[in-house]
Amino acid sequence: MTASPRPSRSAERTFSEPDPDRGHPASDRVKVRRDTKHRGRYDAATIHSILDATPFCHLAYVQDGRPVVIPTLQVRVDDVMYLHASTGSRLGLSAHEPWPVCVSVTLHDGLVLARSGFHHSVNYRSVVVMGDAVLVTDPAEKLQALDATVDHVVPGRAAEVRPPTARELEATAVARLPLAEASAKARTGGVNDEPEDLDLPIWAGVVPLSTAYGAPLPSPDLAEGIDVPPSVRALLGR
Amino acid sequence: MTASPRPSRSAERTFSEPDPDRGHPASDRVKVRRDTKHRGRYDAATIHSILDATPFCHLAYVQDGRPVVIPTLQVRVDDVMYLHASTGSRLGLSAHEPWPVCVSVTLHDGLVLARSGFHHSVNYRSVVVMGDAVLVTDPAEKLQALDATVDHVVPGRAAEVRPPTARELEATAVARLPLAEASAKARTGGVNDEPEDLDLPIWAGVVPLSTAYGAPLPSPDLAEGIDVPPSVRALLGR
Repeated sequence: MTASPRPSRSAERTFSEPDPDRGHPASDRVKVRRDTKHRGRYDAATIHSILDATPFCHLAYVQDGRPVVIPTLQVRVDDVMYLHASTGSRLGLSAHEPWPVCVSVTLHDGLVLARSGFHHSVNYRSVVVMGDAVLVTDPAEKLQALDATVDHVVPGRAAEVRPPTARELEATAVARLPLAEASAKARTGGVNDEPEDLDLPIWAGVVPLSTAYGAPLPSPDLAEGIDVPPSVRALLGR
Repeated sequence: MTASPRPSRSAERTFSEPDPDRGHPASDRVKVRRDTKHRGRYDAATIHSILDATPFCHLAYVQDGRPVVIPTLQVRVDDVMYLHASTGSRLGLSAHEPWPVCVSVTLHDGLVLARSGFHHSVNYRSVVVMGDAVLVTDPAEKLQALDATVDHVVPGRAAEVRPPTARELEATAVARLPLAEASAKARTGGVNDEPEDLDLPIWAGVVPLSTAYGAPLPSPDLAEGIDVPPSVRALLGR
């Protein structure tokens, strides 16, 4: 389940489009290391496309000298990532001062099933962002970030709902994290078997993965005559 | 997109089954905090069921005093989590000695669309494990962990493929992390709107999320007459 010690990259591609300019890492901290270096990209277009493809992320921080990672939501607005939290969370409590964090956004695109266990792999796209998160204090920026978060989960939804009250805005913590130090990494393409394994009578190929949306379940207390809204219909492709 | 400052939990349930014994946190480090405390669980059955539901995880560690988080694969064997890496990775390089890590496994089960932006939420199940990871040196344990990882991605696959060579085993790093300090957290159930919002002409409900497997794409160099194997057919429910 890893890269080969002597990789033959015939079947594996790093990203689906050619990359004459993969960009340059903003710092050593985000430089993609070791034998999968060819999978790294640092250009804003690649990084933004991955961040824009899912709101789900994992946020890491250091507490009492030890690492902690939790799932949360992110949204990109221009070259800033906004992180969602509540005021009582570690993020809400700690980011009054610039707070060192690392965020990973990962999309799993396929299971790569090789003829050997060793060459099994996963097609994925991921971004890692490092930097200092700071709580947003400006109400207008906070409102924009929260609406953008709702719209990142279901595009168009923010305009359909009741806007937040002042009290609700206060009860929500939003942190901003510049995208200055970010890197993207991906594996795409097919199976990368050893040449001597190609004749084995073992199936090899890729099983695509994607996120499926099920049929919407209306709230039991929903009043009669309220249809599934345009945002949800668009999400489901209907 | 958060819990209410004065939560009315009529529609929200913490886990789908009753929980007379939610277990007890093994340490303060894994205790679920703040206003979502009712979502925490510490019993092994709940924790194991989430870890067993997906191989995908995020691994956090501290490097030069700063947090780092990367996606990787995990598998549970009894009360141990095995983490997959390569020998050149940070995990492979650092875990010769016990190495402080935190692992998060998260499943996103549904989008909770409320009448207000504030009460939008996500149904999820997640586990956070804290502890010290140590590289596995025993070849038999490593082989068992790697086979278990392959089988966690596609149940039954390990028995179908060519076993690893000694060289391949050496080129793969596997770390073991005890599940002694772990906690589960989940949100399930429906929308949790403010009472005064219930009459608004706004749709509310849940959009279920799941992982979809696409039709398998055979490797272009696959020999004639090799069918999609039982493991993949079972994965696709065929």
